[in-house]
Amino acid sequence: MSQEPLPTSPIVTAEDPIRVTNPLPVPSSPAPDVLRCASMELVVTDLAASREFYVDVLGLVVTEEDEEAVYLRSMEEFIHHNLILRKGPVAAVAAFSYRVRTPEDLDKAVAFYKELGCRVERKKDGYVKGIGDSVRVTDPLGFPYEFFHEVEHVERLAWRYDLYTPGALVRLDHFNQVTPDVPRAVGYMESLGFRVTEDIQDGEGTVYAAWMCRKPTVHDTAMTGGDGPRMHHVAFATHEKHNILAICDKLGALRRSDAIERGPGRHGVSNAFYLYLRDPDGHRVEIYTQDYYTGDPDNPVVTWDVHDNQRRDWWGTPVVPSWYTEASLVLDLDGNPQPLTARTDTSEMAATIGADGFSYTRPDDDAPMPEYKQGEYKLGHQL
Amino acid sequence: MSQEPLPTSPIVTAEDPIRVTNPLPVPSSPAPDVLRCASMELVVTDLAASREFYVDVLGLVVTEEDEEAVYLRSMEEFIHHNLILRKGPVAAVAAFSYRVRTPEDLDKAVAFYKELGCRVERKKDGYVKGIGDSVRVTDPLGFPYEFFHEVEHVERLAWRYDLYTPGALVRLDHFNQVTPDVPRAVGYMESLGFRVTEDIQDGEGTVYAAWMCRKPTVHDTAMTGGDGPRMHHVAFATHEKHNILAICDKLGALRRSDAIERGPGRHGVSNAFYLYLRDPDGHRVEIYTQDYYTGDPDNPVVTWDVHDNQRRDWWGTPVVPSWYTEASLVLDLDGNPQPLTARTDTSEMAATIGADGFSYTRPDDDAPMPEYKQGEYKLGHQL
Amino acid sequence: MSQEPLPTSPIVTAEDPIRVTNPLPVPSSPAPDVLRCASMELVVTDLAASREFYVDVLGLVVTEEDEEAVYLRSMEEFIHHNLILRKGPVAAVAAFSYRVRTPEDLDKAVAFYKELGCRVERKKDGYVKGIGDSVRVTDPLGFPYEFFHEVEHVERLAWRYDLYTPGALVRLDHFNQVTPDVPRAVGYMESLGFRVTEDIQDGEGTVYAAWMCRKPTVHDTAMTGGDGPRMHHVAFATHEKHNILAICDKLGALRRSDAIERGPGRHGVSNAFYLYLRDPDGHRVEIYTQDYYTGDPDNPVVTWDVHDNQRRDWWGTPVVPSWYTEASLVLDLDGNPQPLTARTDTSEMAATIGADGFSYTRPDDDAPMPEYKQGEYKLGHQL
Amino acid sequence: MSQEPLPTSPIVTAEDPIRVTNPLPVPSSPAPDVLRCASMELVVTDLAASREFYVDVLGLVVTEEDEEAVYLRSMEEFIHHNLILRKGPVAAVAAFSYRVRTPEDLDKAVAFYKELGCRVERKKDGYVKGIGDSVRVTDPLGFPYEFFHEVEHVERLAWRYDLYTPGALVRLDHFNQVTPDVPRAVGYMESLGFRVTEDIQDGEGTVYAAWMCRKPTVHDTAMTGGDGPRMHHVAFATHEKHNILAICDKLGALRRSDAIERGPGRHGVSNAFYLYLRDPDGHRVEIYTQDYYTGDPDNPVVTWDVHDNQRRDWWGTPVVPSWYTEASLVLDLDGNPQPLTARTDTSEMAATIGADGFSYTRPDDDAPMPEYKQGEYKLGHQL
Repeated sequence: MSQEPLPTSPIVTAEDPIRVTNPLPVPSSPAPDVLRCASMELVVTDLAASREFYVDVLGLVVTEEDEEAVYLRSMEEFIHHNLILRKGPVAAVAAFSYRVRTPEDLDKAVAFYKELGCRVERKKDGYVKGIGDSVRVTDPLGFPYEFFHEVEHVERLAWRYDLYTPGALVRLDHFNQVTPDVPRAVGYMESLGFRVTEDIQDGEGTVYAAWMCRKPTVHDTAMTGGDGPRMHHVAFATHEKHNILAICDKLGALRRSDAIERGPGRHGVSNAFYLYLRDPDGHRVEIYTQDYYTGDPDNPVVTWDVHDNQRRDWWGTPVVPSWYTEASLVLDLDGNPQPLTARTDTSEMAATIGADGFSYTRPDDDAPMPEYKQGEYKLGHQL
Repeated sequence: MSQEPLPTSPIVTAEDPIRVTNPLPVPSSPAPDVLRCASMELVVTDLAASREFYVDVLGLVVTEEDEEAVYLRSMEEFIHHNLILRKGPVAAVAAFSYRVRTPEDLDKAVAFYKELGCRVERKKDGYVKGIGDSVRVTDPLGFPYEFFHEVEHVERLAWRYDLYTPGALVRLDHFNQVTPDVPRAVGYMESLGFRVTEDIQDGEGTVYAAWMCRKPTVHDTAMTGGDGPRMHHVAFATHEKHNILAICDKLGALRRSDAIERGPGRHGVSNAFYLYLRDPDGHRVEIYTQDYYTGDPDNPVVTWDVHDNQRRDWWGTPVVPSWYTEASLVLDLDGNPQPLTARTDTSEMAATIGADGFSYTRPDDDAPMPEYKQGEYKLGHQL
Repeated sequence: MSQEPLPTSPIVTAEDPIRVTNPLPVPSSPAPDVLRCASMELVVTDLAASREFYVDVLGLVVTEEDEEAVYLRSMEEFIHHNLILRKGPVAAVAAFSYRVRTPEDLDKAVAFYKELGCRVERKKDGYVKGIGDSVRVTDPLGFPYEFFHEVEHVERLAWRYDLYTPGALVRLDHFNQVTPDVPRAVGYMESLGFRVTEDIQDGEGTVYAAWMCRKPTVHDTAMTGGDGPRMHHVAFATHEKHNILAICDKLGALRRSDAIERGPGRHGVSNAFYLYLRDPDGHRVEIYTQDYYTGDPDNPVVTWDVHDNQRRDWWGTPVVPSWYTEASLVLDLDGNPQPLTARTDTSEMAATIGADGFSYTRPDDDAPMPEYKQGEYKLGHQL
Repeated sequence: MSQEPLPTSPIVTAEDPIRVTNPLPVPSSPAPDVLRCASMELVVTDLAASREFYVDVLGLVVTEEDEEAVYLRSMEEFIHHNLILRKGPVAAVAAFSYRVRTPEDLDKAVAFYKELGCRVERKKDGYVKGIGDSVRVTDPLGFPYEFFHEVEHVERLAWRYDLYTPGALVRLDHFNQVTPDVPRAVGYMESLGFRVTEDIQDGEGTVYAAWMCRKPTVHDTAMTGGDGPRMHHVAFATHEKHNILAICDKLGALRRSDAIERGPGRHGVSNAFYLYLRDPDGHRVEIYTQDYYTGDPDNPVVTWDVHDNQRRDWWGTPVVPSWYTEASLVLDLDGNPQPLTARTDTSEMAATIGADGFSYTRPDDDAPMPEYKQGEYKLGHQL
């Protein structure tokens, strides 16, 4: 990131390329043509409790279920599911699942990941209900990625306003992954055909997080710097902001407000309105609405200064520490939790919280932050 | 469309392919890779009056202007403009402008349209400010289509909430074109790489309108059956429904409510929330929000029965006749209005209004419509 | 109303007192202290169908029910009910029920109406469940008015967001009554302690409608000129405008869009956002949100010109004729429908629709209205 | 407050009367008939900076101004002003101003406060522009209260949607005052004709705060326990929740997010949606929408348990300490700051934050709160 003084204009948008110092090899095999993030398979320890959270509280629709798993979709979805809750001994993520454009893209996925030296498996009848021929890999970052094209169509409930709840979730929007080396992860994802839309850096070029898309929204997935591989969150979209507020109100009415971890608020990055919840296993779910179109190949990348107090929340609301430190385990293809590799770069929390961290509201302003804005970075001296 | 009784489910979604009886040839040259509808060039007869409407009333942002033209963009746009108001003697559309993925796609556009026998022109420095190398054609349907890639980047105002108005327009969403033979137009657009997302048909296979996209929304353009070539409307998106209501409220406060032609309402087709305005020259502008993702190649097509009273307005509000009959002229590459060819298929208004037309709210219900819902199709007997 | 030219400012707010030429006597007995409109008792011909409409579609909450009647309340109500559906042979209104401040106000109501020569009845245990000591009268205009203080308290569901629907009704807002002589009705209501907040007049002093309040909103009831006594509508409030749109969306999904008679739209009078529905018996229900505080004794009265095309709908949307002509019967204290007295003053529909009627968008503007705005007053020539 | 187990229902609504142990005398003179809180006079140290905050950022409308003072009103107001910014050496509140029903109520105010032994002044031409005959007192709690009836009418801008901003403030809603002995303050306010709608207590009967109204909303003023007399905040209403979010977005765009002290969020008490800002002098302004009707004399009082983590924020978001500890000085009738009296009862912050404080989300649940909900009461151990 440029060392020059930041502009006094309201937005910190100095675009700066991410430098990868330790890149993964780029396969010579062409990448599969990924359409979008399509589904996540979550392992949950209490299936009834999880079903109650996602169905009764959040209003996702059950496409199909049995004693081992519940298949859920959002109101505007026409494929079989966007979320699978599967009963298991350890809360974790079994698959980040992407849809590809054609059946042949699965052959490309196999070749692409084999060339990367990854463990690759394929099942003609699919690993889960509703989905046909599928490839599952442990990717170079340790994440269980799935690719599929064949899928059962179900009713798109977009017009079924008789079924909408005040907080209706209409679309799976994105994943967010925790990985130690963000530039390395970005390089790999770019070889898979993803494009960076926004990132957070500091003046020394440390990259704290990056957002990348296939479909023309701000992201299909993001890479967040931290000990990984872990799943930071999965995000569903609503139509409007009041839908997100309605979810909070309902959680209050159910005396489950402790499921609200962070927000609601306006993101700096992505410009979307957001809310973070924690499900009964602690899996983090974001509710998200109104980012912007990113489909042009020269879509401007927005690089945020890590010290900008509005980067994570445009209103300057402090980020709770748990949001930085906690995330879900991910599984290998045998169903065992992946071991974690520690981040060696500075953590975003350390850069902005505590004795050595700092943040600003106005880049050129030496005035102290008011006490009520110091939660994020001066926790030790709050009272 | 199937002659079988319509389902009792709330949505008429029998998918039915459009049969083209009089197709245009499909060029052997590959089509240019169109990203999205990007801009419209409108000829207006009173530049000051039009500027006042689009800037002071609707809040579009002026990127650049001179005595001949005003270049406008929406809040989330990063290219130079989405709308050009150009002073001229006859209100008309000078260009429907699409952005293509690469500079080389302009060569493809030239070859594609030459093979179709169209008049094709190209200007390395562009026809308008802010845009470089451009191709303009009179397409086989008589419309002035423009393709470009090179464009000047300007500030994306997405985060500039200090500039937002209550009815802020954030994105150009789509065009809508009037043409006599909808299936023929659809065939041509499919050869250009567009994909149908929804259409309106009757039991005899007459196609009244079709919606087609490149970016994954319901449309980048739609073909509406009628005497053509004419421009039916250009549409801008807002974030939320209340933004659209705020535009109506403001027009009321300005004592300009007669600029509201139809709506606000909920579309059946597209499921979006909408409003139709008429600018000082009578050009129709739609304000639009919240359709759905259509980016998968097997995205289900929704075919609506022309007699379904909820197809154009989900709430059954009658369509005003002017919406069916009035549209803007389009220009040839010399700037002269294109002559019109009459539609020979049944018109949607005739099929649904008047002594011989009919509509229903429930397909299996013989009960008469209440008087207040008969406006659309029983105008002669309204009182 | 002043004959002077109307201001060019956007709002027609020339305040003009209503002149009563044929007043009712003002009782010497003090009027009861009315708190607010509190409940309506509706006679419905198909109790199951009505229950389905008000409970399953509109989401009112059942406090209590039996085979003869259903008692319903809105989300923020703490008294037993706001609406009673009672099975009966003829669709009609059995009671417009007002709550008074103290038990002693019932004695005042008895004396007040006896002095007016009205039929007055009283029942210590109340006429309906949940309500104690009550007075029922046939008022001088022929309406069945009820007054009560004692009432069973029930849970105020305001915080129960787990029970909210997207279109949740939170409060009974007002009644609207049809009566031939509006000034005479206003005079009577003023003697009962109501205060006019807005009205519609013409340049000759004809009064077409008047809005009157006890609680500090625009009205607890309105008097609409027409053959009467009849009930024009009963209105419930939502929190926000999107709640009203959600009701329309749901009616569309249920293929019941023909229940939508008029709107949604923004009223000129009251400045509220509105929607008019018709229940299975044709009783009209308004959904209403966001009028303004009127509690100061010198609250400015807003007088609208009957020819102002934005008075009934701020966006100039034509009023459907049925809204002017149709209304519900009301019952006498024996349960028989009241005979109607014809209005002799000009009707609002005649003044604004048809060969002799006229309306304007801008008072000083001779330009013709566009075709799509002529629905209200040029129906015969619409096509 | 009852020691019995709290209900498992979502809302803590055990109604419990406030016991006053140290009451003020109740005057034998009748209280003036207060209509509503009508205006606050704020002393600000930098008039230009304050004007910019209230006019350019928040969109209040200037009725009149000179070099010493700016008179502001909200969009639906018809009296001269709701807020006065007056230049002065020390930031403070010069007057909490209430409108009374009649001119004669000023005589009552004089007698009422004289009987209470208060300093009372009266000015026939008013203390400020736009207001006539006025009484100012230092009330028994040390607050500068003003009463007036005569006031200049100005244009009610309710219909002027051409002037609305995305975060338009439509009405002054309430004051909030800090005073050491809440029950004593409540007793005094009840003698002035106010009625309690909600309060916060603990199991030992300590009262932490109480809300009281004249107009039928949750409050015209509230008494918050703390060192006093001080002004906690003044609140303006918006129409909808998105208006409040728009204010946050705009503050972010202006790089003034540090003006946001707390929220936005949903209150438990009042059920309203809220936001707290701090103006350039640190005066706290609340933006508020959608509480409920309280006009019936038997309106149920809602008593909240001080340990209920959803009482102040229905979503359980921790209250920032500054919100508890900081407030504005108030002036005596000579313009000098009032000295403070310390609260001797337990403070709400102490009861809920720190080693000895506790809060719960579910009353019967011994599970520990998640870390991200502990900010309010376990600040010392947050990391």
